[in-house]
Amino acid sequence: MSSEHKTDVSATLIVSCPDQKGLIASVTAFIRERNGNIINLEQYVDPIENHFFMRIEWDFAGFEIGVDLFKKRFQEVIASPFKMEWSLYTSDERPRMAVFVSQHAHCLYDVLSRYQAGEWQVEIPLIISNHPDLEPAAKNLDIDFHVLPVTKENKKEQEEKELALLKQYHIDFVVLARYMQILSDDFVRHYPHRIINIHHSFLPAFPGARPYHSAYERGVKIIGVTSHYVTAELDGGPIIEQDVVPVSHTDRVEDFIRKGRDLEKVVLSRAIWQHLNRKVTVFKNKTILFS
Amino acid sequence: MSSEHKTDVSATLIVSCPDQKGLIASVTAFIRERNGNIINLEQYVDPIENHFFMRIEWDFAGFEIGVDLFKKRFQEVIASPFKMEWSLYTSDERPRMAVFVSQHAHCLYDVLSRYQAGEWQVEIPLIISNHPDLEPAAKNLDIDFHVLPVTKENKKEQEEKELALLKQYHIDFVVLARYMQILSDDFVRHYPHRIINIHHSFLPAFPGARPYHSAYERGVKIIGVTSHYVTAELDGGPIIEQDVVPVSHTDRVEDFIRKGRDLEKVVLSRAIWQHLNRKVTVFKNKTILFS
Amino acid sequence: MSSEHKTDVSATLIVSCPDQKGLIASVTAFIRERNGNIINLEQYVDPIENHFFMRIEWDFAGFEIGVDLFKKRFQEVIASPFKMEWSLYTSDERPRMAVFVSQHAHCLYDVLSRYQAGEWQVEIPLIISNHPDLEPAAKNLDIDFHVLPVTKENKKEQEEKELALLKQYHIDFVVLARYMQILSDDFVRHYPHRIINIHHSFLPAFPGARPYHSAYERGVKIIGVTSHYVTAELDGGPIIEQDVVPVSHTDRVEDFIRKGRDLEKVVLSRAIWQHLNRKVTVFKNKTILFS
Amino acid sequence: MSSEHKTDVSATLIVSCPDQKGLIASVTAFIRERNGNIINLEQYVDPIENHFFMRIEWDFAGFEIGVDLFKKRFQEVIASPFKMEWSLYTSDERPRMAVFVSQHAHCLYDVLSRYQAGEWQVEIPLIISNHPDLEPAAKNLDIDFHVLPVTKENKKEQEEKELALLKQYHIDFVVLARYMQILSDDFVRHYPHRIINIHHSFLPAFPGARPYHSAYERGVKIIGVTSHYVTAELDGGPIIEQDVVPVSHTDRVEDFIRKGRDLEKVVLSRAIWQHLNRKVTVFKNKTILFS
Repeated sequence: MSSEHKTDVSATLIVSCPDQKGLIASVTAFIRERNGNIINLEQYVDPIENHFFMRIEWDFAGFEIGVDLFKKRFQEVIASPFKMEWSLYTSDERPRMAVFVSQHAHCLYDVLSRYQAGEWQVEIPLIISNHPDLEPAAKNLDIDFHVLPVTKENKKEQEEKELALLKQYHIDFVVLARYMQILSDDFVRHYPHRIINIHHSFLPAFPGARPYHSAYERGVKIIGVTSHYVTAELDGGPIIEQDVVPVSHTDRVEDFIRKGRDLEKVVLSRAIWQHLNRKVTVFKNKTILFS
Repeated sequence: MSSEHKTDVSATLIVSCPDQKGLIASVTAFIRERNGNIINLEQYVDPIENHFFMRIEWDFAGFEIGVDLFKKRFQEVIASPFKMEWSLYTSDERPRMAVFVSQHAHCLYDVLSRYQAGEWQVEIPLIISNHPDLEPAAKNLDIDFHVLPVTKENKKEQEEKELALLKQYHIDFVVLARYMQILSDDFVRHYPHRIINIHHSFLPAFPGARPYHSAYERGVKIIGVTSHYVTAELDGGPIIEQDVVPVSHTDRVEDFIRKGRDLEKVVLSRAIWQHLNRKVTVFKNKTILFS
Repeated sequence: MSSEHKTDVSATLIVSCPDQKGLIASVTAFIRERNGNIINLEQYVDPIENHFFMRIEWDFAGFEIGVDLFKKRFQEVIASPFKMEWSLYTSDERPRMAVFVSQHAHCLYDVLSRYQAGEWQVEIPLIISNHPDLEPAAKNLDIDFHVLPVTKENKKEQEEKELALLKQYHIDFVVLARYMQILSDDFVRHYPHRIINIHHSFLPAFPGARPYHSAYERGVKIIGVTSHYVTAELDGGPIIEQDVVPVSHTDRVEDFIRKGRDLEKVVLSRAIWQHLNRKVTVFKNKTILFS
Repeated sequence: MSSEHKTDVSATLIVSCPDQKGLIASVTAFIRERNGNIINLEQYVDPIENHFFMRIEWDFAGFEIGVDLFKKRFQEVIASPFKMEWSLYTSDERPRMAVFVSQHAHCLYDVLSRYQAGEWQVEIPLIISNHPDLEPAAKNLDIDFHVLPVTKENKKEQEEKELALLKQYHIDFVVLARYMQILSDDFVRHYPHRIINIHHSFLPAFPGARPYHSAYERGVKIIGVTSHYVTAELDGGPIIEQDVVPVSHTDRVEDFIRKGRDLEKVVLSRAIWQHLNRKVTVFKNKTILFS
């Protein structure tokens, strides 16, 4: 039961393993026996791969053991026998997010507006850009803004600097707010399923550059945008959120861009919200979105 | 795990009760101990009323006890102590549905098209109408079609005949496919949350008669339709499904009606599908829709 | 002004030509001078190609000249000097449509339901199928149903028979209601922009076979369907209508198919409606949809 | 033809009058005869009231007469004989907009983000609030921020100050960005169809206070927002834009509010864009939205 406990701390456990009988009964009994009141439970079994996923949130206030002991015991009693992968979060954590941006302002401005308005439980200590243009927006909110222009020649070197900054600022996950550089496989490997991109097309239609122009050229009647985790394959990572808006023959490419802009910022922010609330897990390049 | 077991029989249990610790653990253990493999579990706690709801579906093939014994034991061991309301279904049941219709053909035709194409696991032995117009469609599919014209004077009497027919045909639930008569409270009381209506507005906007005309008059930019369970309050019952379509100033009332027609039949059919698949439960005049 | 004149005959003129000054003034003056009251005018200029399009509908009741004289004079006075392509329709025409279908029933049933309910101003004298399964639905409505099974070997020959049937029944345009054969370029050439297909993906994503399976595989969060005119390029013709429906990780391929089915029939019917109402024109593989 | 002329000045004429023959021919001839190249023309006749509306945009660069002479001549030659109401705009004007806001930040932040990013052709010299909280956002962009707290007692007096400020800053139109005060009829009368409000429900459902709470209470499956011009009737003015987002039983009121927030800012901004681009006209409490 959720709203009554809002001020209290809750714990969220996400587990996955090959499906078998007794999984739900075992995990819920484990929590029950330590006096945990389950606020929310959601489970899913992939019907092709026969793989089990569950997200459980419970009231941590009256829980009989702390985080460290939970981790030890849960591994022994449940996770090892069931060959589970799992992670535990508590609701008082405040993840640290970095934003990468180029010159398009709208996604960054939207992220910062939400940050300023306190919509999200997050820290944003760092913005990295290959252009200096958007620095003033960061300054207003006392966020460090690092300019690292990227060329074919210096890309490797600049990515190393970026990785060093991410480490230095203890960044948990990265948001590409219309960042117009392709990150190398090596970079991506450091943040698996922890780099969120917004692509301005309804993937898998129109991957790559200038999707609005391609959509205009093709004469589609609806355009879309896609937020996804970045993987080695360009615009091929697990999709988190998509949304669409109708267009007509009277819309020029500029209108596609204008209408798409509003979608991009909203869909990117929805993906960030899902990620922050531990409602996304990834399996075989697809997301499972808990509700 | 669902798709592998499609040809087998599964059982679906829907429970509700005041929330307390241990509910999920107790129910899942009960099923587990009788060798039940849970295919799907979905739970929800109403945050205002602190009331618990759960839908569990499990493989009935290898289950150690039959339906009758399950009902007995579950009542004793779980339902009584937790003060649960519950119902059990098995996937080989084929609910019996009656359709009420007047002169608008589109919803009836759509229901019958799906019936004929085998989209639903349902029997439709009976159609009741206050007009003879649509009888041929019933005849094509060998469905009995009873004409019961309703006037202010004969309403009570005709409803009694309708109730007798529903009983005679062993009807489980009723679909109002644009039936243009208001059912009496007394009639509705015989089928609580088992009469599905389609109302051609985005409720609670424009209840009652001629909603497209009212929407046109008001100059809305989107119109909608609503499927809901019928209760004593006109167009006030628990909402199952809603959907919308954009309109513009260039659309006349006729265009509202044309666009709305397509919504009506699709949204009504979605509600029927949810009902047939035991995915709807009602609490305090609101539906909980399991996914 | 439209609704008052519904019982009267109106004329619809669709013109296109390279853009230049005075086009609207010239055409509207031509109609005005013959006592035509314009009910509706919509124009569009392609901003890349600088090409002009206009659809004008006017009250034909009090118009001073008939169709034949109009065609002669309009060609001389307006069309020739402006190098216009144009066509004229009157609202009392009743186009003749043929349906091609295979074994999926839902689109055909939906088309026939609308036909039976009188939603469209159309004649459907002919259904062609490569399977005999859906013949009963045609019989109910006294529509001729021809079975022409297609193999790699007999394709050319069967298409010739199909073309002969289309000619024999004086067919104006063809609707592919989930017809699972690819028409040859030669066939398509006989009905340029007069064959309407429904493809069960959000084109240009997932062209070709089994798009729902591909969409499931990719993990998209929204699926769509596309109605388009058939051209030589598979699923590459001018798009008329598209629509989408959300899906989630809990939806299996069967659910994609079920949700998609409802979209397919509605979007196909919207495209047919647009075509029947002379609201579509094609330029450079894109449609201009008049409202 | 539009995109080629983007750097040039265009003129937009919006006219309305009782419908009669020859309206389009007369106006287009008037423009043609003065060497105007029509970029865009859109007309509409209200089918109930038989009233004609037209929006014409033409290239002003090569036009033979200036604004003042146009106004004089057009009134004499066209507007007077046809009893037209009309207004003329040129694309180099930059309307002046004031924002009223209370404590909800998201709409204001979104408006200012777009202003800062140069999305709109507008000046925003003035923000008025009944709370001091959001002043810093205005300061960042050098916009004057006036705090005018409103109580039942001082309302009349404060509105007079507000009107004086609007006059002093030469404000053309006002945007209520979740301003939580109801403006008096007298205030509204000063800016007919020039005050844009965003209401956080799908009007006419849930007018007035706390619509998300009412929507939650009713158990709707979709929530919406509505931007409209403010009139004397609370939430009863002409609707400019509406949009919706699905909700489910798992969404609490807080989730309705969170999801609605994203809609509110996007729909308000769409309405502002339409207004700025002279694409809205009002007739009998309904908007005509040119495309």
